[in-house]
Amino acid sequence: MRTEVCERFGIEFPLFAFSHCRDVVAAVTNAGGLGVLGAVAYTPDRLEEELRWIDDHVGGRPYGVDVLVPSKIDESAEKAGRGEGGLDTMLAAVPQEHWTFLFQLFEKYGVPLPDFEKAKKTRDAKGAGAQVTSQGATALIDVSLGHPIGLIASALGTPPPLMVDKAKAAGVPVAALVGTAEHARRQVAAGVDLIVAQGGEAGGHTGEISTMVLVPEVVDTVAPIPVLAAGGIATGRQMAASMALGASGVWCGSVWLTTEEAETPPHVKAKMLAATSRDTVRSRSRTGKPARQLKSAWTDEWEGPASPGALGMPLQMIVAEGAMRQINKVAESGNEGARELANYFVGQCVGLMNTVRPARQVVYDMIEEFAEAVERLNAITGAD
Amino acid sequence: MRTEVCERFGIEFPLFAFSHCRDVVAAVTNAGGLGVLGAVAYTPDRLEEELRWIDDHVGGRPYGVDVLVPSKIDESAEKAGRGEGGLDTMLAAVPQEHWTFLFQLFEKYGVPLPDFEKAKKTRDAKGAGAQVTSQGATALIDVSLGHPIGLIASALGTPPPLMVDKAKAAGVPVAALVGTAEHARRQVAAGVDLIVAQGGEAGGHTGEISTMVLVPEVVDTVAPIPVLAAGGIATGRQMAASMALGASGVWCGSVWLTTEEAETPPHVKAKMLAATSRDTVRSRSRTGKPARQLKSAWTDEWEGPASPGALGMPLQMIVAEGAMRQINKVAESGNEGARELANYFVGQCVGLMNTVRPARQVVYDMIEEFAEAVERLNAITGAD
Repeated sequence: MRTEVCERFGIEFPLFAFSHCRDVVAAVTNAGGLGVLGAVAYTPDRLEEELRWIDDHVGGRPYGVDVLVPSKIDESAEKAGRGEGGLDTMLAAVPQEHWTFLFQLFEKYGVPLPDFEKAKKTRDAKGAGAQVTSQGATALIDVSLGHPIGLIASALGTPPPLMVDKAKAAGVPVAALVGTAEHARRQVAAGVDLIVAQGGEAGGHTGEISTMVLVPEVVDTVAPIPVLAAGGIATGRQMAASMALGASGVWCGSVWLTTEEAETPPHVKAKMLAATSRDTVRSRSRTGKPARQLKSAWTDEWEGPASPGALGMPLQMIVAEGAMRQINKVAESGNEGARELANYFVGQCVGLMNTVRPARQVVYDMIEEFAEAVERLNAITGAD
Repeated sequence: MRTEVCERFGIEFPLFAFSHCRDVVAAVTNAGGLGVLGAVAYTPDRLEEELRWIDDHVGGRPYGVDVLVPSKIDESAEKAGRGEGGLDTMLAAVPQEHWTFLFQLFEKYGVPLPDFEKAKKTRDAKGAGAQVTSQGATALIDVSLGHPIGLIASALGTPPPLMVDKAKAAGVPVAALVGTAEHARRQVAAGVDLIVAQGGEAGGHTGEISTMVLVPEVVDTVAPIPVLAAGGIATGRQMAASMALGASGVWCGSVWLTTEEAETPPHVKAKMLAATSRDTVRSRSRTGKPARQLKSAWTDEWEGPASPGALGMPLQMIVAEGAMRQINKVAESGNEGARELANYFVGQCVGLMNTVRPARQVVYDMIEEFAEAVERLNAITGAD
């Protein structure tokens, strides 16, 4: 394909793949797109290890890293996280009623409680919200820029000047996700090179304006800065639609979750393959901010009458992350209650994700379907 | 344009325009699209008059009628509406606390209460929910089929067998709006000839699945039945995007509300021109079912702590319609509080509606922009 974004990033197709799984990142990059590793769940050491693995598997082809840098976080919690006690202090900041609700939930669904002492020791390996502090994000940015990355992205809010400055100094383009035209304007003012306009149908943290409306609005607002369309996109028809809207390419996240490479737990993958587009919900129950995810007993209960309500970010992550790890672990051994509770971030396009394919094949299928969609449009206008 | 839908309906462009305004319907039909008159607010006599006017202004070109036939309505209210007392009995079915809340709202915003005796006498002219009963809808269907219409549409739920049978006997294709693939399947089983897949970003009654996801899902579900894309579509780029998704055309409602011909009250039109895509909300406060509309003091107050909550359909319409008529009347004479309360059904694409144009011009602009979008896609694939 011939687009400015393809030339600028040295890629064949303007298809950006967000994934927490290094195998997906490498597979998409090797297939001609640009894989972007979601780094939020990693400690700096673990991220270093992942990026080294990717470097070894992409033969110099471009890939990127996405860091979650919230523009607004619970400062007292952040302070606690930075203080002497570290994560212990942050854990202590979670109100008792939230732990009680969580324990009752585990009991109701017949899920054994995790071994808290053991969990405490291994907690560092998975982050538990610590990386969402500005200190945590800075460490991840430094690790990322130590590698030959082709893009660094900020998933939430305007990237801090520090991030933009460091990236520019390293010659790495900065991308940022936005859910409104107003945010896009602010991001461009902050020095962002590539805007990802993400509609409310997207998985994970998301706003309420749909991709169909948001993309043309953002394109007009930030021109000539290139815009990638995101939110609900899992097929080549949708890629063609996005580019008809004026986008310079697409940013997909959900579609990789049911690929062969994905680390998605098998019981969650099965739920996704069976789900229709109605089976997601925008809920604060996993991170403290509205994030679209599979509807499950977990989201139902947190919205239910017995719920104390979700906490802010990052405290809700501390409550939810450890719980979900235990739920997934128990679910894999067949526990029915745990399977009811299990869920994951995914967009409404989960309804279009009905087969397991290698990530490479997803790229090829999208490009083929893109070409078919363009042919169909040409037949309509009589240009063929 | 060359599409099956164009051939089948005898139109130049597969652009269907839903409007309550006969001038818009005629203008779009005369410009090569297909205007569809929203008939829900009309009595049978008034509808007869409107359709006669359209017949006189389209020179035999095709147009359609849209009737709101709810698949599920409050039966006790419907019964009351059919009974001896008619609308009086239906009015009596509205709980006192809802009237009290409404009166307090008027007082809070400095809007004088309407003359209820006078309103009662003129009420018939505007319907006040009476047409939403099955009896009311049947009368509108009969009037519609007495004219040379090219399409009859059901805006809400599966059309009753009576409607499908009457339309087929008259040789008129039946369209139905759906918000999920499952509903689309049911509509096709009921004999519907054309599916309008309407995303959650649409104005008026709407579901939660976005146009970008819903359209390909519905297209795949009902093939080879043609599907029109609806929800958030106000530009030619979006029309091209919809057809890249597999739609056979588009169904637009919101975009006509700011045209020269539209009967939209001037203060509401001004709000729409100024609004961004963030300024709508899906609320039950006007009809009793979730319907997207401009965010205003009206929607805020009905969601607020003092609100008794919206009633079901059609009771909430009885409360809201008369109130909105008074609000609009008073707002036109400059009352600030009334202007804060005033709103109207509109999709998120209100953010893209920034100029007043003749409806004809909107059609021509969309077709031109459609062609530009296809050219842009050809440049990307290298087909030009």
